[in-house]
Amino acid sequence: MSQPPSTPLLDRVRVPADLRNFSGEQLKQLADELRAETIHAVSQTGGHLGASLGVVELTVAVHAVFETPKDRLIWDVGHQAYPHKILTGRRDRIRTLRQGGGLSGFTRRSESEYDPFGAAHSSTSISSGLGMAVASDLQGKPRNVIAVIGDGAMSAGMAYEAMNNAGANKSRLIVVLNDNDMSIAPPVGAMSAYLSKVVSSRPFLSIREMMAKLARHFPAPIERAAKRADEYARGLLTGGTLFEELGFYYVGPIDGHDLDHLLPVLRNLRDTELQGPILLHVVTKKGKGYAPAEASADKYHGVVKFNVITGEQVKAPPGPPSFTKVFSNALIAEAEADESIVAINAAMPSGTGLDAFAKRFPKRSFDVGIAEQHAVTFAAGMATEGMKPFCAIYSTFLQRAYDQVVHDVALQSLPVRFAIDRAGLVGADGATHAGSFDIAYLGCLPKMVLMAAADEQELMHMVATSAAIDDRPSAFRYPRGEGFGLELPKRGTPLEIGRGRIVKEGTTVAILSYGARLRECLKAAEELGARGLSTTVADARFAKPLDTALVERLAREHAVLITIEEGSVGGFGSFVMQHLAWKGLLDNGLKLRPMCLPDCFIDHESPKKQYDEAGLNAAQIVAAAVAALGSDAVAHRPARA
Amino acid sequence: MSQPPSTPLLDRVRVPADLRNFSGEQLKQLADELRAETIHAVSQTGGHLGASLGVVELTVAVHAVFETPKDRLIWDVGHQAYPHKILTGRRDRIRTLRQGGGLSGFTRRSESEYDPFGAAHSSTSISSGLGMAVASDLQGKPRNVIAVIGDGAMSAGMAYEAMNNAGANKSRLIVVLNDNDMSIAPPVGAMSAYLSKVVSSRPFLSIREMMAKLARHFPAPIERAAKRADEYARGLLTGGTLFEELGFYYVGPIDGHDLDHLLPVLRNLRDTELQGPILLHVVTKKGKGYAPAEASADKYHGVVKFNVITGEQVKAPPGPPSFTKVFSNALIAEAEADESIVAINAAMPSGTGLDAFAKRFPKRSFDVGIAEQHAVTFAAGMATEGMKPFCAIYSTFLQRAYDQVVHDVALQSLPVRFAIDRAGLVGADGATHAGSFDIAYLGCLPKMVLMAAADEQELMHMVATSAAIDDRPSAFRYPRGEGFGLELPKRGTPLEIGRGRIVKEGTTVAILSYGARLRECLKAAEELGARGLSTTVADARFAKPLDTALVERLAREHAVLITIEEGSVGGFGSFVMQHLAWKGLLDNGLKLRPMCLPDCFIDHESPKKQYDEAGLNAAQIVAAAVAALGSDAVAHRPARA
Repeated sequence: MSQPPSTPLLDRVRVPADLRNFSGEQLKQLADELRAETIHAVSQTGGHLGASLGVVELTVAVHAVFETPKDRLIWDVGHQAYPHKILTGRRDRIRTLRQGGGLSGFTRRSESEYDPFGAAHSSTSISSGLGMAVASDLQGKPRNVIAVIGDGAMSAGMAYEAMNNAGANKSRLIVVLNDNDMSIAPPVGAMSAYLSKVVSSRPFLSIREMMAKLARHFPAPIERAAKRADEYARGLLTGGTLFEELGFYYVGPIDGHDLDHLLPVLRNLRDTELQGPILLHVVTKKGKGYAPAEASADKYHGVVKFNVITGEQVKAPPGPPSFTKVFSNALIAEAEADESIVAINAAMPSGTGLDAFAKRFPKRSFDVGIAEQHAVTFAAGMATEGMKPFCAIYSTFLQRAYDQVVHDVALQSLPVRFAIDRAGLVGADGATHAGSFDIAYLGCLPKMVLMAAADEQELMHMVATSAAIDDRPSAFRYPRGEGFGLELPKRGTPLEIGRGRIVKEGTTVAILSYGARLRECLKAAEELGARGLSTTVADARFAKPLDTALVERLAREHAVLITIEEGSVGGFGSFVMQHLAWKGLLDNGLKLRPMCLPDCFIDHESPKKQYDEAGLNAAQIVAAAVAALGSDAVAHRPARA
Repeated sequence: MSQPPSTPLLDRVRVPADLRNFSGEQLKQLADELRAETIHAVSQTGGHLGASLGVVELTVAVHAVFETPKDRLIWDVGHQAYPHKILTGRRDRIRTLRQGGGLSGFTRRSESEYDPFGAAHSSTSISSGLGMAVASDLQGKPRNVIAVIGDGAMSAGMAYEAMNNAGANKSRLIVVLNDNDMSIAPPVGAMSAYLSKVVSSRPFLSIREMMAKLARHFPAPIERAAKRADEYARGLLTGGTLFEELGFYYVGPIDGHDLDHLLPVLRNLRDTELQGPILLHVVTKKGKGYAPAEASADKYHGVVKFNVITGEQVKAPPGPPSFTKVFSNALIAEAEADESIVAINAAMPSGTGLDAFAKRFPKRSFDVGIAEQHAVTFAAGMATEGMKPFCAIYSTFLQRAYDQVVHDVALQSLPVRFAIDRAGLVGADGATHAGSFDIAYLGCLPKMVLMAAADEQELMHMVATSAAIDDRPSAFRYPRGEGFGLELPKRGTPLEIGRGRIVKEGTTVAILSYGARLRECLKAAEELGARGLSTTVADARFAKPLDTALVERLAREHAVLITIEEGSVGGFGSFVMQHLAWKGLLDNGLKLRPMCLPDCFIDHESPKKQYDEAGLNAAQIVAAAVAALGSDAVAHRPARA
């Protein structure tokens, strides 16, 4: 482990007010120290390094110029806020980042008054910032609101909705567009092309040009239009037209790593009497100032622990392929056999494993940007023409496209296939990224076929099943992380729709698992068996259509029925209860215990500990069964025990 | 009832192919006949008249120029498609519009091959159209795809996401921007201001200018930029820059009621070799060609039956105030007493009743446009500053903002208040507008407080309750339509959180209602009483937090417990079962029957008939109770019976 860097100036900063008297030169040195400290901290914790390195100077500049926390600084997504956390009273805990009980990897209101808005999903900052700006006006409490948003996040509809609203509003809001030409993957879409054009078509604004532009403030509309036409013709103003048309006052592009530029322009924006929203276009480099990051393809977007000197990441010993990888391979195998299969992802080619699909089938792969709503309806459009679209979107991000799933897919019974990665609890990314709700929010929709994979073999079969379902939508969910190392076929075999399987036969207790808790159920069955309670374990495979024959049989033939799922209330267990209730199978003393995620958000931790906290591990299944049987537990023991 | 109009040319059109040999003059006459037929039909059925009248010429022109149904014509929202339905084989059923068993008020794939994509929620057409265009390329089946979208729909994020993706794509897609400066209410936002500027700053393109522009096709980028700067300076091209920056080839604005302009420009777009997406900016008037519509404030957006000659709408005799009206009054009463209350709606000021709020508190009212995602996070931003935002969004449209509710509101436990109008089945608007899922999709979220109003008095109390909840989000749902005519207090009284009420005491059957089925429950109780089955009726008021004491008491003290709600599986009944299961209260022979909406989409009909179909009316409650008791029913009769 390398030594912590020497940080004499940073050591003097406990809160941002401490750096406001620093000279420009001191702030530059502070930025260097802050960068070194960030690198060192993340080398010990892992995390989102590249994005944080890109905004070191911006972080210093904003805190130097504005009066945080009275002025509100909102980091879109929030994974670039590690330097911000170091400057805002959290340096002493920065090496607990993303560890259980430690700092969150994102901004978080409960963590600091310097985090006025928590984030993790992208593109929320302009909306929340406008809300704060409007509130400030209504309350007569003047303050600045600064929202820092990346160019990738600009592809999301909600960023546009917010700009459209802000641009027609007189409230003062400073949007800093942090343009690093890279979100997680290289960016896609017309907005990105537009920004590249703006940046490449001219050098950065000089200080003098910036000041000249700002001095003009807002001329009257007619005068302004005339002036702009004039500027346009002279080639002075090649950038920002799009934002200006949306009602923003555009300044930029400027070099986001040059404090000599950042500080005066931010001071000017702070002091100007401009009404309405301002867009400051800042160009930065993801991974800036750390050679291994700058040299890597993803700019150290998310890293594990690493060696500061070499940049070498401390890889865990190679384990079994991840569910993501298995999905990717399975889909490629299906697509080899069926050329109507296409794959869609929303700015997550590597996270979803579809980068491999894109390599194999470049024309049949679509990365639409951070645009889940569009992704789903785009897929629906393809489905109407007989294509077989697979939409690979994490459970937590599919929430962004809920109405599109309901209105464009389910209502029309279009065979869009949803590959729902990161189902259930997800570890270090915490509650914001947990895939807790998809069983409930999809299960209530007519026409859906819903599956959950107990292991990676099952996942392969579910990909094949989904490919074969061509008269209605289907979805299959699978967890984050490694599989169980099972041997895999070359290609999956379609499952019978709505049919589960008995994995282990027993007589007293039945455990019906939906998803990847199956192994915990088997462990629990073993323990129950050791206590003399013969236990059946079944894998439901489908939450919808429910295997009613299986459910009824388990209910009739056992004293206790436990359902278990990696999801919230309102999901699989609810569907089982709903069915059994109307069949009258709850009327006769069956002890039903539906196990699901508890009604709280679960913080970042290892998945194992998260599931302990959630109460969904083997010991807790055993406890539930034993408690349900109560004094009956003895009676249920076979006579020979 | 007026006579049907004389329509000699229209009578010759059974399908669009029949009009493709008509001359320009004939098409003009056809358009006039089509308008007259549309007016006459809607005068008998009610419906969305204004939007349809605005696109009569466009409908004729597109069908005359393009080869529908091989070419795909997508109507965004679809409520403007009545003339399209008349031309595409559905004229014989046009007077069944929105009636039970009749034509849908929107486009619908199952209704006609001329409806390639069903709609009702806005802003989906560019995404679905791009999907079709891409599929056409992949399949090597050249066809045109035309998406017609209103200017109001352009404020939605998903339209932008789709443009952003289309603009970076080489597939041919024709987007017709139907700019009538009016969606349901006057439009808001920067995009709308931009379009107004484009339209007002210059006359319509002349045919000659259009052709000159089209002839240029796509010059090389550099040449194009130079040309544009030049044009800009000369004032020739004042419009469309924004769309061109997003990668669209922009043509317009042109007069959307002038077939002499529409036909040649559409032919040209059809025949050009242009690659990539095209935006044709067409200016129309909502309500065009029918004086009473043109003169009315909302341009006859949605009308009941009316007299064709006078335009007078056949108003039903005045009934009790609607739930919407009661909500509106209740919120105004709260806001009079608390100046931190603000109200947000998404392009639905009159639909939500917030127009009255805006009149009373113009500075505290925010119509953000069709932008539900932004609405919710904007509200969240205001909540962080101590404001008390009420977001009034229909149940079906709140689906658009699901992730924002999860990630920006619930996760941060911000006290945003959701006023969920149109909960449950909604009548003539049909399945696309049903508010079926909100109990399930919100109920799974930690921290939420969920309420449903049994009647308008309850609604007033729930508004007051929500106003008083300041440490977490809350939501209250209420149905479409009239209240029960109850006397109302000036202002509601906050309810005890998580506490229901017993409305009628009994001994054998318990009916626990969540929402506006309460009166059906009381009817059922009466009928059950007549059969000797003493029945308790309770109003849960809260789905979350659940009144566990009440639920447990009902379970312990009755033989049958029926829950009922105007929502899907996974909602209130599921929460009750989940609780009772873990309390062991399902273990002892309680006959639990959770009544909810069935697992299918329910077509447009009167709400009464929809609920009959759904199985949620009094007689069906009685039947459920009697069947549950079975032979026990006799045993449960009191001795004196």
